[in-house]
Amino acid sequence: MKIARLLKDGKETYGIIKNDKVATRQSITYETGVPLPLSIRDFLFDGWYNEIENKISDSSFQDKLENFQLIEPLSNPSKIICLTFNYPNHAKENNVMSPKDPVIFFKPRTSLCGTGSNIICPSFVKQLDYEIELSVIIGKKIKNVDENKAKDCIFGYMVFNDVSARDIQMQDKQFTRGKSFDTFAPCGPYITTASEIPNPQDLRLVTRVNDQIRQDSSTKNMFISISSIISKLSKVMTLEKGDIITTGTPEGVALNNTDIPFLKDGDKIEMEIEKLGKITNTVKFVD
Amino acid sequence: MKIARLLKDGKETYGIIKNDKVATRQSITYETGVPLPLSIRDFLFDGWYNEIENKISDSSFQDKLENFQLIEPLSNPSKIICLTFNYPNHAKENNVMSPKDPVIFFKPRTSLCGTGSNIICPSFVKQLDYEIELSVIIGKKIKNVDENKAKDCIFGYMVFNDVSARDIQMQDKQFTRGKSFDTFAPCGPYITTASEIPNPQDLRLVTRVNDQIRQDSSTKNMFISISSIISKLSKVMTLEKGDIITTGTPEGVALNNTDIPFLKDGDKIEMEIEKLGKITNTVKFVD
Repeated sequence: MKIARLLKDGKETYGIIKNDKVATRQSITYETGVPLPLSIRDFLFDGWYNEIENKISDSSFQDKLENFQLIEPLSNPSKIICLTFNYPNHAKENNVMSPKDPVIFFKPRTSLCGTGSNIICPSFVKQLDYEIELSVIIGKKIKNVDENKAKDCIFGYMVFNDVSARDIQMQDKQFTRGKSFDTFAPCGPYITTASEIPNPQDLRLVTRVNDQIRQDSSTKNMFISISSIISKLSKVMTLEKGDIITTGTPEGVALNNTDIPFLKDGDKIEMEIEKLGKITNTVKFVD
Repeated sequence: MKIARLLKDGKETYGIIKNDKVATRQSITYETGVPLPLSIRDFLFDGWYNEIENKISDSSFQDKLENFQLIEPLSNPSKIICLTFNYPNHAKENNVMSPKDPVIFFKPRTSLCGTGSNIICPSFVKQLDYEIELSVIIGKKIKNVDENKAKDCIFGYMVFNDVSARDIQMQDKQFTRGKSFDTFAPCGPYITTASEIPNPQDLRLVTRVNDQIRQDSSTKNMFISISSIISKLSKVMTLEKGDIITTGTPEGVALNNTDIPFLKDGDKIEMEIEKLGKITNTVKFVD
């Protein structure tokens, strides 16, 4: 299933997407008789999704997708955990080795936005860069989970852009501030449930800037696998329903690549991961 | 006012503390007739606190403080923003200069605990350390706020221990993972409202480990002032009600001080900030 948060005429809802059609919360409730909650978070993680999963039929898909704006699928995750240097070729761009334990930072929820949103960047940022990443959405509260059980904790996946102000990141050495600006975490376009992705370690990821390919790799090139990431992180901290873990970016960013320019006002960034859809965002510099 | 989250017989409530007495949510509601919400977050930030602030009287303080356990005042902040090297003498311990812009990392909400809790540390951590910090609790949603208006955005203050696994912090170079373990953010003992602290830049901070003084400084030694921190952070990200900003630690930690040992099982850590109270936590290593 592909589950999205949706905006139409200023009103928010959520729904399930099939082809170019949407079954909204309202139409699913009408058809199945199950009174779905207002919050997508409750829908996904409090049993409602499981309850309607096998009850909805083609007749629920009554609305055209094009009539809705897709917004970030989750607006209030407890954590957005980001891995660094998890693709060896990207690590090499930075003259480092991929670390065997996940080196992480967090992004704040205030950085989230959906496909179609502008990436709004203050003009004091001089080196704006992109990073395509496969994001995992945790579906269970877990601590100290074994690697071979980690997959059971995944609710779904989405595309994630770890937008980065490289000048601030390099000045600070700590990565957090330069990656924490509002709108620096475009994601979506929807959550694809884990059952649709039997092998998340074999998905092509492609970034295009103004229609030119910049990143083109596969999740098979991750250094630490998704299951290992979840297991290792769960030995540090409790992972909660709705937590987002984003698993690092492959090579092809502007940083350290003199032939690739940093982002400029008006640049269109498209990020697509096989089976998970595409997010498109436009850079807007502001004073 | 001093406002605390309280636990008694496994039931959670909140209340206001005066001397050794507590006015619980229930007794305030009974006395004032104002039906206070169940959540301390709603109480603090949705106008309820303002409504009862001038209505409660001494007769509300009916319970003895000693009958309650104080837990972390906020369990679900949107962000816990931590500053690094904001006291020049601590920066010097680390052979760095205090940065003029705040260099930050986030701690996850799952790291929070209250006074009296154990700091539970997996035995694979070899260099466990403490950091006393003055924490600021944001009371308004703000973006791009001027330094001279930053103070109006502060709801209150509390004591915060930025517990740190130095071996992991140093291995990763990024500070986040080594500071994100569950229970690595003891805080409290309660929130002291901003109106009680006319000058937050002149408060003594003292850390004792097993009754020996380890850190003894004043918030006047901060390099970037609280107002400047809030202003600068708000130019990066939207700050929200209940966000916690913790403002860096003074000198006297174990890291880089060969005469100060890292924490070991059973160590008792007391952290006290003038006018804000004291938090006490015991280190417990687990396999």
